[in-house]
Amino acid sequence: MKENFFTLRTVIWDEGRVKMIDQTRLPGRLVYRSYDGWQGVAEAIRTLVVRGAPAIGVAAAMAVAVTATRSKASDLDSLRRELEKAAAGLRATRPTAVNLFWGIDRAMGAASKARTPREAKDALVKEVVQMAEEDVAACKTLGRFGADLIESGDTVMTHCNAGALATVGYGTALGVIRAASEQGKCVKVVVPETRPALQGSRLTAFELVTDGFDCKLISDTAVGSMMQSGRIDKVVVGADRVTKDGYVFNKIGTYQVAVLANRHGVPFYPAAPSSSFDLSRTHDQVRIEERFADEVVKIRGRRIAPKGVPVANPAFDATPPDLVTKIVSDKGVIGQPLAETITSVMR
Amino acid sequence: MKENFFTLRTVIWDEGRVKMIDQTRLPGRLVYRSYDGWQGVAEAIRTLVVRGAPAIGVAAAMAVAVTATRSKASDLDSLRRELEKAAAGLRATRPTAVNLFWGIDRAMGAASKARTPREAKDALVKEVVQMAEEDVAACKTLGRFGADLIESGDTVMTHCNAGALATVGYGTALGVIRAASEQGKCVKVVVPETRPALQGSRLTAFELVTDGFDCKLISDTAVGSMMQSGRIDKVVVGADRVTKDGYVFNKIGTYQVAVLANRHGVPFYPAAPSSSFDLSRTHDQVRIEERFADEVVKIRGRRIAPKGVPVANPAFDATPPDLVTKIVSDKGVIGQPLAETITSVMR
Repeated sequence: MKENFFTLRTVIWDEGRVKMIDQTRLPGRLVYRSYDGWQGVAEAIRTLVVRGAPAIGVAAAMAVAVTATRSKASDLDSLRRELEKAAAGLRATRPTAVNLFWGIDRAMGAASKARTPREAKDALVKEVVQMAEEDVAACKTLGRFGADLIESGDTVMTHCNAGALATVGYGTALGVIRAASEQGKCVKVVVPETRPALQGSRLTAFELVTDGFDCKLISDTAVGSMMQSGRIDKVVVGADRVTKDGYVFNKIGTYQVAVLANRHGVPFYPAAPSSSFDLSRTHDQVRIEERFADEVVKIRGRRIAPKGVPVANPAFDATPPDLVTKIVSDKGVIGQPLAETITSVMR
Repeated sequence: MKENFFTLRTVIWDEGRVKMIDQTRLPGRLVYRSYDGWQGVAEAIRTLVVRGAPAIGVAAAMAVAVTATRSKASDLDSLRRELEKAAAGLRATRPTAVNLFWGIDRAMGAASKARTPREAKDALVKEVVQMAEEDVAACKTLGRFGADLIESGDTVMTHCNAGALATVGYGTALGVIRAASEQGKCVKVVVPETRPALQGSRLTAFELVTDGFDCKLISDTAVGSMMQSGRIDKVVVGADRVTKDGYVFNKIGTYQVAVLANRHGVPFYPAAPSSSFDLSRTHDQVRIEERFADEVVKIRGRRIAPKGVPVANPAFDATPPDLVTKIVSDKGVIGQPLAETITSVMR
């Protein structure tokens, strides 16, 4: 296979368009889609064409930039109103990952210093191109920090997809695994499929098989059994938001992986770039997205549950700091007590 | 809806045939299939047309009875050889649920006292009809014992399907819920979908919606989140085998539900008839069935994972006695210390 996820890019600024891998088509087909308006990007975020906290942060910033470059506004005030509208629309797509708001804020900040529409457009394009580069660089940096925690021969369990597909490239949790592999360490990976949206089987397994990693796919129900039978040495997951009190918001199911890791003495490492840290909020101030019932009662369009059954479908959960061994970030590895260390490392 | 699972029968002795609900067709269609040879029943057990420890125990016993009634053997020795062959074939279908072996042994025992082929056939038919009746009676009895542990207003989480469909009728875990409901208690039920075979969404949700229970379907990844947010008061699950040292073998995922219940102070109650207790073995002597990869990489025939990805697919796990609050059986409620109490209650 020609492509590999060490170098592939998920979100690309393509001369005035946002070009993204359509993740709803994976693992069947690896295809890109292009967007020339913020509405399309917002819809892509909502429908999981693009997902993963770092990826949607950069995609949303690029959507603001697209709005600027396509704008016909002749004065700065009109342009700003257009950008504000785009920003509001993008902010309304998904509530839990903080990177979305970080990305939009950063784009809006870049535009705010401009004195003319032209300057605003140029500043925005420059900013989003840099954000994409920084995201890959942050993944590689945190990957190297995290790789120090991995020993050759380890079997690492992850959850959901915190890979190249969740970022602009390289990945966070899978970035740690890639970096360990680039250091010559032999790492095996166990991947829970991660219902309801199956990011584990559709995306993470796809990345790992593509890159030739030794991996094993399991049902989400087999997490405990794998730990109990001693087959897991470490857990490395991503994070959609780390609050200042050390809670890790991530894909639904992460919390129970952490509880099981704790019971079995398996270290639990979330891995996230600075853009996923929310130093202004504690865990009780974060809204957990509730997604639509069809994700649970249908799989790839096929009904698997009786008609009319009520569903609860929270998309994320919060892992409390006492279950976290260390957090891997691009600023370094964050140890206990998390609340204090986060503030000092991220300052 | 006409049918309800308070009275519906999953496995029926139908004048020389074994008639069973085809559970692979649920929740789409409720249809019965008939079998007139043990090979068909063995295949039905292997392919989950019939599943659930008590149900496959009775189905296998009936398959032995079918073999006898259809036999053309003129002497007892020939008949016994035919029955031994059927028993061996049936024993090879699934290794973990002890009821399968219990059912076959009981059928073979009934035939063993006969002095003529006619007597053997009559004894077998009488025995399997009685086993079916006893199974429903045991479910109703354990249901009443278990209902004493449920308070009106409780939200009970279950796992997999331990309902009417897992037994001849009425159910074990759902038997407890049905009995509580028949006592006038208001019980809400939370149902994890139970990947890979989706017995939660396809079967348990179907039973509960059919019977008009207030229920909620969740992904297996949302178990921890539901507990963490305080929405679960009790857990009641089935059991495929309870060993003499108090380990509860049940559908993959049960162990992690138990670990989470333990962390959140939620009582965890397995419910099982006497036929699920294995007083001759400790937990390390039980083989956990590993099922084929297609259950994980495909859902209802659709591929959801990349080609070539390796899979681990254990069908059961073992919950240690320290995570079990009490076991509900048809002989009474079994409290701690489980190993001692099991022996005294089941003697």
